[in-house]
Amino acid sequence: MNRRMVFYILGKILMVEAALMLPSVIVGIVYGEKATLSFALPIVALALCGFLLSFKKPENREIYARDGFFIVASAWVVMSLFGALPFFFCGRFGSFVDCFFEVVSGFTTTGASILSEVEALPNCILFWRSFTHWVGGMGVLVFVMAILPLSEERSLYLMKAESPGPVVGKLVPKMKDTARVLYGIYIVLTFICIIFLVCGKMPVFDAICHAFGTAGTGGFSIKNAGIGFYNSAYIEMVLAVFMLLFGINFNLFYLILLGNIKDALKSEELRWYLSIVSASTLIISLNIMKTFKGQSFRYAFFQVSSIITTTGFATTDFNVTFPELSKSLLVLLMLFGACAGSTGGGIKISRLIILLKNFKSEIKKLLHPRAVTVIKLEGKPLEKSISRNTVVYFMMYMVIMIVSCLLISVDNFDFTTNSTAVIACFNNIGPGLGAVGPLGNYGGYSLFSKLILSFDMLFGRLEILPMLVLFTPAAWRKRVN
Amino acid sequence: MNRRMVFYILGKILMVEAALMLPSVIVGIVYGEKATLSFALPIVALALCGFLLSFKKPENREIYARDGFFIVASAWVVMSLFGALPFFFCGRFGSFVDCFFEVVSGFTTTGASILSEVEALPNCILFWRSFTHWVGGMGVLVFVMAILPLSEERSLYLMKAESPGPVVGKLVPKMKDTARVLYGIYIVLTFICIIFLVCGKMPVFDAICHAFGTAGTGGFSIKNAGIGFYNSAYIEMVLAVFMLLFGINFNLFYLILLGNIKDALKSEELRWYLSIVSASTLIISLNIMKTFKGQSFRYAFFQVSSIITTTGFATTDFNVTFPELSKSLLVLLMLFGACAGSTGGGIKISRLIILLKNFKSEIKKLLHPRAVTVIKLEGKPLEKSISRNTVVYFMMYMVIMIVSCLLISVDNFDFTTNSTAVIACFNNIGPGLGAVGPLGNYGGYSLFSKLILSFDMLFGRLEILPMLVLFTPAAWRKRVN
Repeated sequence: MNRRMVFYILGKILMVEAALMLPSVIVGIVYGEKATLSFALPIVALALCGFLLSFKKPENREIYARDGFFIVASAWVVMSLFGALPFFFCGRFGSFVDCFFEVVSGFTTTGASILSEVEALPNCILFWRSFTHWVGGMGVLVFVMAILPLSEERSLYLMKAESPGPVVGKLVPKMKDTARVLYGIYIVLTFICIIFLVCGKMPVFDAICHAFGTAGTGGFSIKNAGIGFYNSAYIEMVLAVFMLLFGINFNLFYLILLGNIKDALKSEELRWYLSIVSASTLIISLNIMKTFKGQSFRYAFFQVSSIITTTGFATTDFNVTFPELSKSLLVLLMLFGACAGSTGGGIKISRLIILLKNFKSEIKKLLHPRAVTVIKLEGKPLEKSISRNTVVYFMMYMVIMIVSCLLISVDNFDFTTNSTAVIACFNNIGPGLGAVGPLGNYGGYSLFSKLILSFDMLFGRLEILPMLVLFTPAAWRKRVN
Repeated sequence: MNRRMVFYILGKILMVEAALMLPSVIVGIVYGEKATLSFALPIVALALCGFLLSFKKPENREIYARDGFFIVASAWVVMSLFGALPFFFCGRFGSFVDCFFEVVSGFTTTGASILSEVEALPNCILFWRSFTHWVGGMGVLVFVMAILPLSEERSLYLMKAESPGPVVGKLVPKMKDTARVLYGIYIVLTFICIIFLVCGKMPVFDAICHAFGTAGTGGFSIKNAGIGFYNSAYIEMVLAVFMLLFGINFNLFYLILLGNIKDALKSEELRWYLSIVSASTLIISLNIMKTFKGQSFRYAFFQVSSIITTTGFATTDFNVTFPELSKSLLVLLMLFGACAGSTGGGIKISRLIILLKNFKSEIKKLLHPRAVTVIKLEGKPLEKSISRNTVVYFMMYMVIMIVSCLLISVDNFDFTTNSTAVIACFNNIGPGLGAVGPLGNYGGYSLFSKLILSFDMLFGRLEILPMLVLFTPAAWRKRVN
């Protein structure tokens, strides 16, 4: 491993994080809150550590694929450790593990909380909590890449490790420009979302925080009752549509920007995504008709959109109000997740398509051993290595979920709670069923389980491999060649 | 498809099933039970249909791999339809679907029951119920093969479709002799088990029925409280050890018979199997120490053995008495299952080993793209096609479980009950958690869900592909070439 280069990039990231805390400080000053002081020490610490680490530009700036994974994974862990400090200093959270859980949940856009009472928090802390969603949604490395002088290949390694989905596409010839385009689209869409929310008479501060949660497909709300607090069909529909938009591959938005709407609409993944959303909304609408009567489409559509995009906002305690079929379907959608290249989590629709096509081709091969099959995705033949990696990904995914379930079951919560807690954290959703339902929280788990779940969130957000590298002793060794 | 040949073999199987009902008739006559008459019509119907179907030997006796799958799958469905008739005529069960569920649960050695009260059943019905476990454990086709005049290749196709596990090994050069050796070992072991149970003062009839349930790793008991009824540590240990024995690949017993004990003990699968059993017993013993004190090893070992071999006998209502960690571990063992080539269900230990090795080699490839990896099983390099089939098997396995969970959730049982009901049926275990725990039953599910679960049991026992062929329209078509 090129340790100097790792330290150098880590240093830059810490300095960026110090800067990212400034908006929260401004919020605190505007509202005249004492809690603003909780940011002082973290900002100084971040700036200092960042400066010391990146003070000297390393001469050998070579990094390989594995270094890329390592940098991204360690950056996310270190960023979370520092990011938890304002929570810790404000004194409204329990132990440091609780703060770590909360900020990891923020950065990974999970939205799982250990708090039962969020409305009592100062605005600057609420802002930081929601802002971590927005930062984590698009990825910090992508942001750093936009400003760091890195070669093409090196940027690609970082991008590959942080971007969700089986294939990373470059929008424009230069990686750095790609990062800038992505952030541009992200900022504009978030801004439009805020405007739509304010038009629905949501207070500006609330609108900004909820827009962050929507854009990052995170799900932290600043109200105890979540989006249900506003009890406005307009606001719910705005959020449902924007969640769906942020769950779409950003490359498609770029295509549309270029005026290439036809190509964008032809996307196989988009069609599957929209079909799954429509079918699920229909099934749940019919299934909850008895309870919600004329409002069933409203509640079904919002919940489907919130869950499949792995946002996790709630307008009703579906854990109690939905029948089992709807609940099981929501759990299934949790696993599915949104499109690759979006801010959403989960397995991702394109991976599911690849799995499904592999599956069909293998069954065909079993029944007709001499048949020749070619798997195509988005009209192009799929590289064998991507197919294979997807299958391995799915297996790793299952193993991590099963092991996590076993580990947290020591806390003696029931099977429904444990299994959906792991699903909700690992897929970066937030609420599950049972004790971790939309109106419940993760505060009841032991510190050990909270750490397990925090790492599940990181494994989920970074799609396993980078985190796995972090736990591989070989990756820590200095490279000889 | 060679329809004539399919009908011919089906006919032979029906005649064998008629003969298999005779022991139950003898039991009924010995106990002087009226219910014996319930067998009259089924036996006549089986003999008649069997005779008509197999009256004329087909001239073209060619069968292909797909025909083998088709024959096995249709045989199991038809056998179950006829096998349910005695239950139906005895009048102690509900609808015909209930009887079908019960007999499928018997033949597939699941042991899930829709009855809350079994002690009230006549002995001849109880005997038939337990006997189906014994018949289904080793496989009916294997039995038929031992007596049918089929060519080597044709036998292998049938054997492949019915035998559990990723690889089918021939013990002796001729398939027919292999089938005879397997049945010989099976009969002798069952007999020894009966003798051990009778020595523990279990009544002879009870011993025979429970030995059937043990040999087939089925799990039907003839007592409402299951094995807990006898409250004897000796009986429990005998059963636990015999369940473990029947969960071992029968090829190993053959090796031991040949005096090749060293080779048998070297088996990689056996070592994994015993290690998993030991580790799980240890963890559960420690975990239940608080409730069971000095008896914790007794209860832990029995339950681990019963669950990993997919038998499903119970000595305690682990759904209530075990803490969550132990319960989750049991659910995991349900998925694992026993060794390939045994009478147990589940994914099978050897498949898990293959998955794990694939997994390790793929991760290695991801981190070191130029590394060359060879996967070995039992010391020999593993064919690529077996590796690939195992991965596909695992994916099919997950898809079927998820779809089944969704389908049965319409009955509005809770998530724990639904998911473990599907796991317990698909892996041929019997009891799950929640409402389908060891002291619960499947009677509460709707007829629709009972049918879904019945087919889950068949998919599980025949390891998916044969049943899938049955649902493929192409397989029904007459072959042109």
